[in-house]
Amino acid sequence: MIEDKNQQRTDLGNLGEFGLIEHLTKNFNINQKSTIRGIGDDAAVLDFKDKQVVLTTDLLVEGVHFDLSYAPLKHLGYKSVMVNLSDVYAMNAKATQITVSIAVSNRFPLEALEELYEGIQTAAKIYGVDVVGGDTTSSSTGLLISITALGEVTKNEVVYRKGAMPNDLLVVSGDLGGAYMGLQVLEREKEVYKVNPTNQPDLSMYTYMIERQLKPEARKDIVKLLKDLDVKPTSLIDISDGLSSEILHICKQSKVGCDLYESKIPLDPQVISACEEFKIDSTTVALNGGEDYELLMTISQKDYPKIKANPNLTVIGFITEESAGKHLVTRADTKIELKAQGWKSFND
Amino acid sequence: MIEDKNQQRTDLGNLGEFGLIEHLTKNFNINQKSTIRGIGDDAAVLDFKDKQVVLTTDLLVEGVHFDLSYAPLKHLGYKSVMVNLSDVYAMNAKATQITVSIAVSNRFPLEALEELYEGIQTAAKIYGVDVVGGDTTSSSTGLLISITALGEVTKNEVVYRKGAMPNDLLVVSGDLGGAYMGLQVLEREKEVYKVNPTNQPDLSMYTYMIERQLKPEARKDIVKLLKDLDVKPTSLIDISDGLSSEILHICKQSKVGCDLYESKIPLDPQVISACEEFKIDSTTVALNGGEDYELLMTISQKDYPKIKANPNLTVIGFITEESAGKHLVTRADTKIELKAQGWKSFND
Repeated sequence: MIEDKNQQRTDLGNLGEFGLIEHLTKNFNINQKSTIRGIGDDAAVLDFKDKQVVLTTDLLVEGVHFDLSYAPLKHLGYKSVMVNLSDVYAMNAKATQITVSIAVSNRFPLEALEELYEGIQTAAKIYGVDVVGGDTTSSSTGLLISITALGEVTKNEVVYRKGAMPNDLLVVSGDLGGAYMGLQVLEREKEVYKVNPTNQPDLSMYTYMIERQLKPEARKDIVKLLKDLDVKPTSLIDISDGLSSEILHICKQSKVGCDLYESKIPLDPQVISACEEFKIDSTTVALNGGEDYELLMTISQKDYPKIKANPNLTVIGFITEESAGKHLVTRADTKIELKAQGWKSFND
Repeated sequence: MIEDKNQQRTDLGNLGEFGLIEHLTKNFNINQKSTIRGIGDDAAVLDFKDKQVVLTTDLLVEGVHFDLSYAPLKHLGYKSVMVNLSDVYAMNAKATQITVSIAVSNRFPLEALEELYEGIQTAAKIYGVDVVGGDTTSSSTGLLISITALGEVTKNEVVYRKGAMPNDLLVVSGDLGGAYMGLQVLEREKEVYKVNPTNQPDLSMYTYMIERQLKPEARKDIVKLLKDLDVKPTSLIDISDGLSSEILHICKQSKVGCDLYESKIPLDPQVISACEEFKIDSTTVALNGGEDYELLMTISQKDYPKIKANPNLTVIGFITEESAGKHLVTRADTKIELKAQGWKSFND
């Protein structure tokens, strides 16, 4: 889209840094009671009174985390916010403020950044967070987005990775593997496009997975659902790197083991048929694919009746003593050691 | 330094992202009472009780904000923290926590990142802030550092850019232009080195300016000094882009004008002689040079007796009605309009 020579292009150099920030953030409203002062001073000023504050940050780098040849900038802005809010929800907290910093090369016209910020603003509006600061600068190559998110939570409600206990149930929201399979579809279409740019692919059977990849949603609704169901998880983490990696984080910090049941891992029918088409094992995709931004939690068995009828939550295993080890119980009922592959971006 | 082939080099790819974060942050201690949980979960958890929270973030990009051919990585880590803490102090607040995110190409060995983090850790220790989170990822080219800083301040103590009133005094800490002249010296030596790599330059007469450029200090001491003197500025900003740019920020947000006296701008003798040597006007350097990280403030005239004997603070002008305009009063006693050039990184 940014390659379209017919569109209006405004050179970033004409605006200067202050002009650019002012221009991009002029429609950003302040809605959070805790935001005393947003953009426009040396720092934002926030007031959380008797709440605890949670703070998280993520970097997204062109060529590592996204490919602008198929990620529309508006979706990219939206996704960048989701990646961070997901970490806030993974503390069982309410997201309240974000800061957005970008480094961008001169090859991007102003209109491209406007699109990016439109996605950021849409995400902020839907999820009810204030954009309270940031930084824009030039880079020698490509686009880099750094977002920091703040949230609030009462001391009694915060949930860490470290509270899982033997016999707790391992529970996941939504379904897994969609974002990874969406990426496979997009990568394949990119190769097809290189060979034949006039080809118009029919992607209708992949829409769910492509949306999971390009425009994921953070599970704010699950945090609310758990409160409504009166369930406080014993541990909680978001699934950014793949299910196995996240389970191992919980086990390591909680000093426990686990049995994960392959047959229980929730998969969307589109993901199952795409895995068949691409000849990839669907369990491998769910375990190592990443970017699903679902929530993984452990809950006490006494809470099972409260969640068992809920279509948003699936029990996929249980926690064991640390000495029992961390295992995947396969469909053939054999136990194999659970290993993390996840995203090792430095090995790419 | 990172080009030295004789040093031990550990490939980043061997560690993976989690291993790298763990390795780089293992010596980071938690000292702030407000830090409930630092690195190691989805988000840090902070508790500010009845204080307000200030939040600021900055991006530093290789080739735009720093040049690794003369900026040692340890100093670069230190400076990255200073740039952010300076914004916290510019709110009259106490800095408490930072997050550190870096994007780095595979050409950097682990030892280079260790140096960078050593600088970050030194800064955190000296300034008494906790490192509570961050992100590391690969980049296709170069090094990028994104730091977010949090601070605390009571509602009555916070000082914005917008409170300056006509007749207030314009006051600056320390002296100006040193960081810019340090950069000029380093750039010149880089050119000399390209022509004759065996040349050993004598930089002893430039040490103050080089230190101002490579390892600046944020003025935590000035925030304390003002409290000790019982002076609450009416407006406050840090000098990152150059004096004129910062004065204009205060004037714009406070809806006032100003008279800045050229003869009052504090300059170090080293800066004056370097300006003569480089044939640059020292006032231009102080007005537009930037990166001094001093604090610029306005104070009520009734507070003048409290600060007049203090060697850390210099009165450089006063605030006028907005309609009077923003002026520099030259040594020849002529009034010229004050304009900002600052750093326009997109025009580079």
